[in-house]
Amino acid sequence: MKISFKNDYAEGAHPAILEALVRTNTVQQAGYGYDNYSAAAKELIRKKIENPQAQIFFVSGGTQANMLVIGTLLRTYQSVIAPETGHIADNETGAIEAVGHKIHLAPATNGKITPESIVDFATRYTNYPHQVQPRLVYITNATEIGTIYTLAELKAIYECCQAHNLLLFMDGARLGSALNAEDNDIQWKDLARYTDVFYIGATKNGGLLGEAIVINNPALTDGFEYYLKQQGALLAKGRLLGLQFLTLFENGLYDALALHANQQMKRIKEAFLANGYTLLSNTCTNQLFPILTHNQIAALAEQFDFYQWQKVDETHTAIRLISSWATTDAQIDALIQAIQSLAVTQ
Amino acid sequence: MKISFKNDYAEGAHPAILEALVRTNTVQQAGYGYDNYSAAAKELIRKKIENPQAQIFFVSGGTQANMLVIGTLLRTYQSVIAPETGHIADNETGAIEAVGHKIHLAPATNGKITPESIVDFATRYTNYPHQVQPRLVYITNATEIGTIYTLAELKAIYECCQAHNLLLFMDGARLGSALNAEDNDIQWKDLARYTDVFYIGATKNGGLLGEAIVINNPALTDGFEYYLKQQGALLAKGRLLGLQFLTLFENGLYDALALHANQQMKRIKEAFLANGYTLLSNTCTNQLFPILTHNQIAALAEQFDFYQWQKVDETHTAIRLISSWATTDAQIDALIQAIQSLAVTQ
Amino acid sequence: MKISFKNDYAEGAHPAILEALVRTNTVQQAGYGYDNYSAAAKELIRKKIENPQAQIFFVSGGTQANMLVIGTLLRTYQSVIAPETGHIADNETGAIEAVGHKIHLAPATNGKITPESIVDFATRYTNYPHQVQPRLVYITNATEIGTIYTLAELKAIYECCQAHNLLLFMDGARLGSALNAEDNDIQWKDLARYTDVFYIGATKNGGLLGEAIVINNPALTDGFEYYLKQQGALLAKGRLLGLQFLTLFENGLYDALALHANQQMKRIKEAFLANGYTLLSNTCTNQLFPILTHNQIAALAEQFDFYQWQKVDETHTAIRLISSWATTDAQIDALIQAIQSLAVTQ
Amino acid sequence: MKISFKNDYAEGAHPAILEALVRTNTVQQAGYGYDNYSAAAKELIRKKIENPQAQIFFVSGGTQANMLVIGTLLRTYQSVIAPETGHIADNETGAIEAVGHKIHLAPATNGKITPESIVDFATRYTNYPHQVQPRLVYITNATEIGTIYTLAELKAIYECCQAHNLLLFMDGARLGSALNAEDNDIQWKDLARYTDVFYIGATKNGGLLGEAIVINNPALTDGFEYYLKQQGALLAKGRLLGLQFLTLFENGLYDALALHANQQMKRIKEAFLANGYTLLSNTCTNQLFPILTHNQIAALAEQFDFYQWQKVDETHTAIRLISSWATTDAQIDALIQAIQSLAVTQ
Repeated sequence: MKISFKNDYAEGAHPAILEALVRTNTVQQAGYGYDNYSAAAKELIRKKIENPQAQIFFVSGGTQANMLVIGTLLRTYQSVIAPETGHIADNETGAIEAVGHKIHLAPATNGKITPESIVDFATRYTNYPHQVQPRLVYITNATEIGTIYTLAELKAIYECCQAHNLLLFMDGARLGSALNAEDNDIQWKDLARYTDVFYIGATKNGGLLGEAIVINNPALTDGFEYYLKQQGALLAKGRLLGLQFLTLFENGLYDALALHANQQMKRIKEAFLANGYTLLSNTCTNQLFPILTHNQIAALAEQFDFYQWQKVDETHTAIRLISSWATTDAQIDALIQAIQSLAVTQ
Repeated sequence: MKISFKNDYAEGAHPAILEALVRTNTVQQAGYGYDNYSAAAKELIRKKIENPQAQIFFVSGGTQANMLVIGTLLRTYQSVIAPETGHIADNETGAIEAVGHKIHLAPATNGKITPESIVDFATRYTNYPHQVQPRLVYITNATEIGTIYTLAELKAIYECCQAHNLLLFMDGARLGSALNAEDNDIQWKDLARYTDVFYIGATKNGGLLGEAIVINNPALTDGFEYYLKQQGALLAKGRLLGLQFLTLFENGLYDALALHANQQMKRIKEAFLANGYTLLSNTCTNQLFPILTHNQIAALAEQFDFYQWQKVDETHTAIRLISSWATTDAQIDALIQAIQSLAVTQ
Repeated sequence: MKISFKNDYAEGAHPAILEALVRTNTVQQAGYGYDNYSAAAKELIRKKIENPQAQIFFVSGGTQANMLVIGTLLRTYQSVIAPETGHIADNETGAIEAVGHKIHLAPATNGKITPESIVDFATRYTNYPHQVQPRLVYITNATEIGTIYTLAELKAIYECCQAHNLLLFMDGARLGSALNAEDNDIQWKDLARYTDVFYIGATKNGGLLGEAIVINNPALTDGFEYYLKQQGALLAKGRLLGLQFLTLFENGLYDALALHANQQMKRIKEAFLANGYTLLSNTCTNQLFPILTHNQIAALAEQFDFYQWQKVDETHTAIRLISSWATTDAQIDALIQAIQSLAVTQ
Repeated sequence: MKISFKNDYAEGAHPAILEALVRTNTVQQAGYGYDNYSAAAKELIRKKIENPQAQIFFVSGGTQANMLVIGTLLRTYQSVIAPETGHIADNETGAIEAVGHKIHLAPATNGKITPESIVDFATRYTNYPHQVQPRLVYITNATEIGTIYTLAELKAIYECCQAHNLLLFMDGARLGSALNAEDNDIQWKDLARYTDVFYIGATKNGGLLGEAIVINNPALTDGFEYYLKQQGALLAKGRLLGLQFLTLFENGLYDALALHANQQMKRIKEAFLANGYTLLSNTCTNQLFPILTHNQIAALAEQFDFYQWQKVDETHTAIRLISSWATTDAQIDALIQAIQSLAVTQ
């Protein structure tokens, strides 16, 4: 059996979550998100981000969160500006278009959008009413290639959005990894200040499933619960989501798990660099994109599972390695040893 | 703390499921439903229904299952025939209309549709192309009021559908309770023969979440997995769904849990009947609708949680009581004792 | 060639419209509704209804008008209350559901909805967020069976809507016929006071095509022009619509044509009554529903085209006869003569 | 009053169409496209393209045609490949996304897509089921910048589509201008061979409104008429559309009008070239994109209406001039004189 570095959802949940499920299993609770665990978890998150007005909704996954947020915030003729590498652009089977909205693909540098390209799209569509109206900017943090936004970048984007009547929505499927990266300077409370909506991913950071959609401006929540139900996103046993977020946020576990994943990947990163490899992007999160020869990839693939991410030239391809809350020291050790062997053989 | 008979999703999951989650937690698995547990669970279900060709997809909940099935099977101009009391008619926030389809509300007797009313709708829309084209019949088993279809009724409906080019779709959110009711004569294999699509509900029968959509005719599955992903229904950790169905189906647990729920409710039913109460409908599943005076309801509500279902006359209302796999003997005993006290106090 | 009383769109346009088309044909105009004729026509309509704030949009047909209005005014989880005989209910191929909204079918008396049934639907959906939120009441005037609303009825419905946070939308595909019926007491200005949105049908009253959507409350028009374009409803040569409404409204032609149609049908009505026939409903508009024996229908069908509307008993069926702005005295004379022959032959 | 070269829909209809409307005005016809004129027009078009099996539907406009065709041909998870300059990409307010489909923007050379970029998109989406499935290629002929496809180009694209299970759909809003351009080698019958669906625009070539959707493969028409009705695209007086196409196709008028427009623009083109101007693209259709200085543009704008199309450098911009069936010699003479004056003054 190979060791998988393919993704951060190959295992189940952090043991503390399973323990909480067992412990509370027979306590009767109201359904559809009105359980006590959900209420307590929401309160913890509001405190963490220092926004007592935030409205919070737990849903099952990232694609669902993206379509629900965008579907509820936009009028039919409004559009989304997203970096061309954004998850909604090519990895969600057209979910955003399926709820009726065009996505403008902005150039991305290191997976990130810039205020300049936002302004470009925001001001380009002047042929009323023949063109859509850009209304929302979608970003991911950490990005699809493991990079993160700095606070200065986030503020600049948010201010640009404010200036052009655009909402800012941050996809946080890997938010924990971003906020706990060693080069990060965004704090939790900044998410309440410099986004309109964001979500906190648990699926990829210790949960069985679950993303917490946080709507900072209560004016944007009109009818959202109806919409959740209508779109099949409201779980009868909402306790399952609430309890996980309660567990993750009541004692710093969420941050700790993300930090663990980042640190495990840091060891891999250092091993590649020490052995003279190049990286596709310089990441401090739980994703790493080392560039290998095809022979090296074949050798590595005998022991490990991972994605081949992007062809670099005729003989080289960047692979994607991902660590998680569950990645063990032994798994890291095995990979480091393989990296060192590669360096010799190739 | 009151004892809740409000619904069958007030607790977590059957302990065997939690144990399986703990046991398999660190085994790495492929994502998005391609894990081994899902594969094994599907195989068990195929055997159970004796349809090796059935295509099976695990999703999170009943509304989601309904909109996905109907959304994928129908062309935009096609419509659904459903009993007026069907769950999709009034309890899913217009989820079916939101995917673009009209629901024709057929008269329901004991929560059930008849071939006569199906024929009526199937033959009424002759003003081409100004009227929708009925294409699918939706039924629930057990129904929303706890009744079940007999095998003869199911066959008659299916044959009627076949004769009128209609697909038959059975919502099985409470399928376990139906198939394990003492007055039931439908076997699992009959579901493969006399429906085009059905689903097996786990949320209300021991699971944390999960419905298994079973498409008996493989020709109907074209592109369904794309659609699942697009609609936000594909969980990254599909293992969570697969493992639950594996646990429920590998040793008869699914049937056993439903039988338990039914038997617990049977004790309640007998208590009401023994004390001279009338029932809104004669049910042998995990739902019971006794008719009480408003004073009796107020007295019962001091100790128990339940829904007031339907006003019967100025002084009487039918309440809804639901048992589940988790309902204990002690809870039943407490309720029976309360029923007996009611009878005295009036 | 039979004479058709099947509908009010069997001919082209009133000659004054064709003359205007010819007269203005080579005058260059701006596209997409920004032509001078459209501007002038809107101004005339605003004056006619005494609402200077009304926003007016010309579209091609009634189904298009209905889906556009309802699609833009409602949030996804909101629903429509309509009389069960309403045109959107069964004659528009599910156009309203196709834009995502459930239609509640209210009982109709003489084709009309009552405040009582509106209140019933408006107050029934209390199971938040599992049920849709009724938000708009749809009525037609004249109705699908040729009846009309009185001013008192309209006011009562509007006030009921106001009291329950419902918008009132009047489908006016045959508005001219209604307002010019001899038993009508609604004036044009009342439409601005007692509806939120209505439209004025030209297709069935002298135009080649065209309905004028009138939004009385400017707050409801947000982004509507984007939506028109997106839904394919914005004609490049908007002048075609504007010029027709200009012609119809600059000299009272619209009312005159409707009055003509009503008066022609009145002669038919009197002929039937004089010969002892019963009518399905007592109408003073351009629609008549006489009840005939099947032999009489067969005899009449040799010379005339019409719909068989509704079976009344084993030997009788109500037919639908429609007159229009184009119905000639000769056509009426021929029909009256046939009616008189029928009476004799049986 | 300035002379407009802004577009090809500034006037009404060719006089022959108005005459036909007057001539047939009181002939009673069946509604909703079942009139005799529509039937005859369809037959003429089938003969013209030499495809007796073609299914033909008349609709009101180009955006409507595009959304109807794409909406009916694709499953929800399927996508469209279009040149980045395609009309559906940026000038239809997201109509295609509003019916649920992603548009992939392919690089365009002279407004045209290449087989290479089609193959690129067709083979790129391998991450099943997380990515959409390209299913249809959209092209326009003439393109948005007045260029046309050669027969060799069309065949190559069609064969590429066939090889990759893609449908080919040609937007023919300006098809007449393309087929009657002096550098054109595509014949009408080629449209039946080398596209799956195309439409013939009348709005911009002599009609009041109207596009004829031609579906070459009858297997693709399933339920299309239901869909037309549902989407509000079925005119009650379908005769208005049928009669126009009958007039345009019964005596070669359609080609003649397009040829006239092209020839008028050729005179303008020659005038610009003779005076030393550069063109943005070399076009032989009814669109011309001369590059002028901003001073020249200002001078020209005193007498003429036109669009400023694309900035070329700090001092130059390409303008768009469009001629039509209605463009008179006098209008052309006036523009040529102005061009000659420009050359002197600037």
